[in-house]
Amino acid sequence: MSTEPDTTARLLITCPDQPGIVAAVTTFLYHHGVNITELDQHSTDPEGGRFFLRLEFQTPHLDVPRAALERAFREAVASHFEMNWRISYAADKPRMALLVSRHDHALMELLWRWQRGELRVDIPVVISNHPDLREAVERFGVRYEHVAIDAATHAESEARMLALLDGQCDFIVLARYMRILSAEFVARYPQRIINIHHSFLPAFVGADPYQQAYDRGVKLIGATAHYVTRDLDQGPIIDQDTARVSHRHEVPDLRRLGRDLERQVLARAVRWHVEDRVIVNGNKTIVFA
Amino acid sequence: MSTEPDTTARLLITCPDQPGIVAAVTTFLYHHGVNITELDQHSTDPEGGRFFLRLEFQTPHLDVPRAALERAFREAVASHFEMNWRISYAADKPRMALLVSRHDHALMELLWRWQRGELRVDIPVVISNHPDLREAVERFGVRYEHVAIDAATHAESEARMLALLDGQCDFIVLARYMRILSAEFVARYPQRIINIHHSFLPAFVGADPYQQAYDRGVKLIGATAHYVTRDLDQGPIIDQDTARVSHRHEVPDLRRLGRDLERQVLARAVRWHVEDRVIVNGNKTIVFA
Amino acid sequence: MSTEPDTTARLLITCPDQPGIVAAVTTFLYHHGVNITELDQHSTDPEGGRFFLRLEFQTPHLDVPRAALERAFREAVASHFEMNWRISYAADKPRMALLVSRHDHALMELLWRWQRGELRVDIPVVISNHPDLREAVERFGVRYEHVAIDAATHAESEARMLALLDGQCDFIVLARYMRILSAEFVARYPQRIINIHHSFLPAFVGADPYQQAYDRGVKLIGATAHYVTRDLDQGPIIDQDTARVSHRHEVPDLRRLGRDLERQVLARAVRWHVEDRVIVNGNKTIVFA
Amino acid sequence: MSTEPDTTARLLITCPDQPGIVAAVTTFLYHHGVNITELDQHSTDPEGGRFFLRLEFQTPHLDVPRAALERAFREAVASHFEMNWRISYAADKPRMALLVSRHDHALMELLWRWQRGELRVDIPVVISNHPDLREAVERFGVRYEHVAIDAATHAESEARMLALLDGQCDFIVLARYMRILSAEFVARYPQRIINIHHSFLPAFVGADPYQQAYDRGVKLIGATAHYVTRDLDQGPIIDQDTARVSHRHEVPDLRRLGRDLERQVLARAVRWHVEDRVIVNGNKTIVFA
Repeated sequence: MSTEPDTTARLLITCPDQPGIVAAVTTFLYHHGVNITELDQHSTDPEGGRFFLRLEFQTPHLDVPRAALERAFREAVASHFEMNWRISYAADKPRMALLVSRHDHALMELLWRWQRGELRVDIPVVISNHPDLREAVERFGVRYEHVAIDAATHAESEARMLALLDGQCDFIVLARYMRILSAEFVARYPQRIINIHHSFLPAFVGADPYQQAYDRGVKLIGATAHYVTRDLDQGPIIDQDTARVSHRHEVPDLRRLGRDLERQVLARAVRWHVEDRVIVNGNKTIVFA
Repeated sequence: MSTEPDTTARLLITCPDQPGIVAAVTTFLYHHGVNITELDQHSTDPEGGRFFLRLEFQTPHLDVPRAALERAFREAVASHFEMNWRISYAADKPRMALLVSRHDHALMELLWRWQRGELRVDIPVVISNHPDLREAVERFGVRYEHVAIDAATHAESEARMLALLDGQCDFIVLARYMRILSAEFVARYPQRIINIHHSFLPAFVGADPYQQAYDRGVKLIGATAHYVTRDLDQGPIIDQDTARVSHRHEVPDLRRLGRDLERQVLARAVRWHVEDRVIVNGNKTIVFA
Repeated sequence: MSTEPDTTARLLITCPDQPGIVAAVTTFLYHHGVNITELDQHSTDPEGGRFFLRLEFQTPHLDVPRAALERAFREAVASHFEMNWRISYAADKPRMALLVSRHDHALMELLWRWQRGELRVDIPVVISNHPDLREAVERFGVRYEHVAIDAATHAESEARMLALLDGQCDFIVLARYMRILSAEFVARYPQRIINIHHSFLPAFVGADPYQQAYDRGVKLIGATAHYVTRDLDQGPIIDQDTARVSHRHEVPDLRRLGRDLERQVLARAVRWHVEDRVIVNGNKTIVFA
Repeated sequence: MSTEPDTTARLLITCPDQPGIVAAVTTFLYHHGVNITELDQHSTDPEGGRFFLRLEFQTPHLDVPRAALERAFREAVASHFEMNWRISYAADKPRMALLVSRHDHALMELLWRWQRGELRVDIPVVISNHPDLREAVERFGVRYEHVAIDAATHAESEARMLALLDGQCDFIVLARYMRILSAEFVARYPQRIINIHHSFLPAFVGADPYQQAYDRGVKLIGATAHYVTRDLDQGPIIDQDTARVSHRHEVPDLRRLGRDLERQVLARAVRWHVEDRVIVNGNKTIVFA
């Protein structure tokens, strides 16, 4: 798992399942001087299902330029198998924008991991509907933009946010951003907005899940990282985790324990997204972790 | 936690919170030659809330008969604090009846632990709406009764079951019993019927939760042990747990992994119930585990 | 993961890493009408390391007999890459012998899973150095042999055991067998004897690990399934797990909680072994779970 | 668990076990207008063992000054039962000094929780044997002192550190401080130095435990928070946790995953210490969490 990032590339493929896919792909790569270091595959059904493939490979001995490799792959392999596919190169860091409201824990966790070099991304901007976290963010050398938002100005505020984001980021993380994005906004970033919800979805959708969890008397609390779709809290789940609680924990305790869960689950989901380990299949995910 | 069972007794108390409760109770017990070996307390709110107390104590030096101790406690302590209370003696094993349909894993787990001496109960009867598990149950020397049940005969079948149960058992465990008990049946055993639901409640109430979990694409499956109330899957939760799954797990895999969760969660909940560690407070539980 | 067992085959390969292995193997299989349903690979080092490959494939359209397929694979692929390899067929159930002393929990867990169809093995014999568990084993329709063993008769007793085992079993599980096998015995079943040790190895090797854990005051107990080598408790680890404990747990409590861990860890390890998911690499394992 | 800190006090007691202790203590407190909100007790053996008691209580209606309360408790209760005891008041924040080398994750975790108000301590100083983390620490408004240390200057450097610490702190946290403290240093802060060791002790004592874990091929890595005694990695364990790893994880991966464990385990242990939830009993701890 600890590969030299600068020569690492990844090929993600989705296509109808049929025999011979892996043979065709790996033979193609072999003939172009590529050494495969990770290979994961999944089929929803060998007879008529969808096939998913992720390859991580090293390109120091690649015999052609990237564009030529990709053109050759399209012609020699991809078109025959009707593949949706893409190659990404670890040297090209994806650009991650962050949206946040007032809770800083999920945001700080990501910034801290990024600063340590654990998250190989660029961070063009942090946008918040509150001014509170400016100083904390700017300390990391990251741009902070305050875009106030309320019911009356929602469309206008989203337009300002999109002006800051479009062309500047490859994906967006909602690090406890407490406003609901419009369907139009979401549609601009399909499968490219990650949210952390502070419950074990589908339990406790909607507002104040820790209060809901307390009221129901659950013995575990949870957190869920998922891609945002137009249906609130219904998008494809990337990762989840739970922690044990008891009758001794009141709502503030659940929030405190939940923060730790949220930080870990979101960090893991973002890492997997950045490393191209997540493929969306309908309303579910394939995670080649 | 490993006490001599034959001289162990437990006192469970629920009352309005106010200062002095623990002092009054422990002073009373001290004066009657009792040695307290476990003490757990909980208050929902020190100002006007409910107070819960569980004491485990050893009675070898008890200076009065049980009835006298209980009468003295009522007069000297309980009436003053408006306590709901009861004392149970570990030497008096509770009688646990089991209801099961066709899945044997939860049933076998309990029978196996009982045979090993891990569960200090008597088992007067296992009732099933199917004949399948007779031999497996009778091997343990336990009585098996087949009571067929369908929509037309539901009331009559429940009457037969109650005839087998009433006066014969102190509590009932639904070890994957797949029929819904009527409100009348449930009302006969308030807070004394334990069910194992094969999901992390409140996610996936109702039928076939593993299929529901698969369809939603969750990354954890769960199991929940709860007391049965008239509202299906809504009763007070005693214990829950989760296990990690992935896109590779299809519904039969979820069922297989879920069986292990169900066995453990149910066994833990039953153990806690038997040791008088669970107090119901509205729709939630206090578990002094 | 839930494949039709009767047409499932698995190919396990270990060889020096070099480019082109996956391409060669998958192309070969494709040309013989095989549909690959799982593929896992691992390299200790793409430059000069060892390469490990596990394929699960479906053989309903296999175009040649098994022997012909294997001969062709050897000639066309395996010899070129200097592979250690084997193909196993899920229809050929491996034969699992069990050794046990007095504690029945690990044994019962395996027998129970086997009876349910979760463990696709045949069980030719259970051998014990005590007579205690005969009835419990024979109820499952499994042969039970009591081979007493003590210091004076050790060699002779092992000879009796080997007479019962050799040619009758493919691998052996020590389901809490408390005697140490001789180096000669172990050498007969290299990487084919699985033991469950009741601690998180390498902590607490040797006798009475729960007492050791209690004395050290650990906050987690563990269990470890490993292949047996001539060095006690030093063999390649297949699986481990831990459970939280506290100062309230005395040694009998640790034993009770530990039993649940041991059952689960051993069952998982045996399952992985049976499904050819474990490859030994020196003193470590690759587990394609 | 979420009490008003400014009126919260805690009483910790260790004494020989005998009947009547809880009655005496709670009756005393009741008569002084104190409302007990948490009570935990533990006995190593009701017959001749040690008894441990922790009470958390609210003092808004306390009828005497602190000193008078404590004097009265000593005379009326503590001397009779030969108690070691102390009362602490949540309003008096303990002073926590931090020692660190180059790895910042454990340090940052504690500073971040402290800044959020999760850790109710004052932090007089962070001391490091490297200059690297000065800026990161000073951003939190915390004093940073660089005290270089090597074999030749060890005694002198420790003297400088003690000059910074003595009288300025109540306890010390080694947040990945990679130098071994002398026995003399340790003796100055008995049961008041907390270390985070990056393994599941007692496995992998000493240097580079992640490399040791990798070499042994374990399937879980761990972290252990413990009090420092003169014997390296042998002190009373406060908390531990583990995380699952596989053959895919090389040493840098173990370090990365281990950082998350270390942060959580250390933060939990420090929190428990600060809330007076940990009592040392020989080489083990009682944790009333």
